[in-house]
Amino acid sequence: MIAKTPQPPYYAVIFSTVRTDIDKEYEETAFRMEELAKEQEGYLGIETARNELGITVSYWKSLDSIAKWKNNMEHTMARNKGRMLWYEKYRLRICKVERDYGFEK
Amino acid sequence: MIAKTPQPPYYAVIFSTVRTDIDKEYEETAFRMEELAKEQEGYLGIETARNELGITVSYWKSLDSIAKWKNNMEHTMARNKGRMLWYEKYRLRICKVERDYGFEK
Repeated sequence: MIAKTPQPPYYAVIFSTVRTDIDKEYEETAFRMEELAKEQEGYLGIETARNELGITVSYWKSLDSIAKWKNNMEHTMARNKGRMLWYEKYRLRICKVERDYGFEK
Repeated sequence: MIAKTPQPPYYAVIFSTVRTDIDKEYEETAFRMEELAKEQEGYLGIETARNELGITVSYWKSLDSIAKWKNNMEHTMARNKGRMLWYEKYRLRICKVERDYGFEK
């Protein structure tokens, strides 16, 4: 669902991926990484969708919280497996959210 | 597919949406908006995926190019229809991409 983020500024990591056809351990690991991210200091929320392209956006309080999450040991091991097995290619963009607004019926 | 964006800094608009069950004219308009965005000054690329949640990220050269796209007449009409018909809720986040990196097999 749409993440309930605070007033900007905060940070977003846009993770755009193209998968291989190797599914082994992918779903469990993706789920585990989402759960693990939620436990990290500075985590604000996550949004994810996938068709041919997958887009996962995670939201963070600061660049420092993003750097810590990047260096988390279990996350690093998952990333290495991702490069070996699950991802054909990906792009990761680190952004500062400057403004946001919403609509709700 | 993954957008081929230039060296940062550039801008991203993260558009996270929850749809209604009204499909009338939605697909055509979404396609038309993507084509129209591509014609705008400062457009750099677009990525989109949808499950329960839809995420469309468009990339832009500057805040000025985002403002011009926002005020485009045809885009404004589509946005109004979107609020009336297609979207239960959405959130739009305007971000400065500060760093990016990729992986490719």
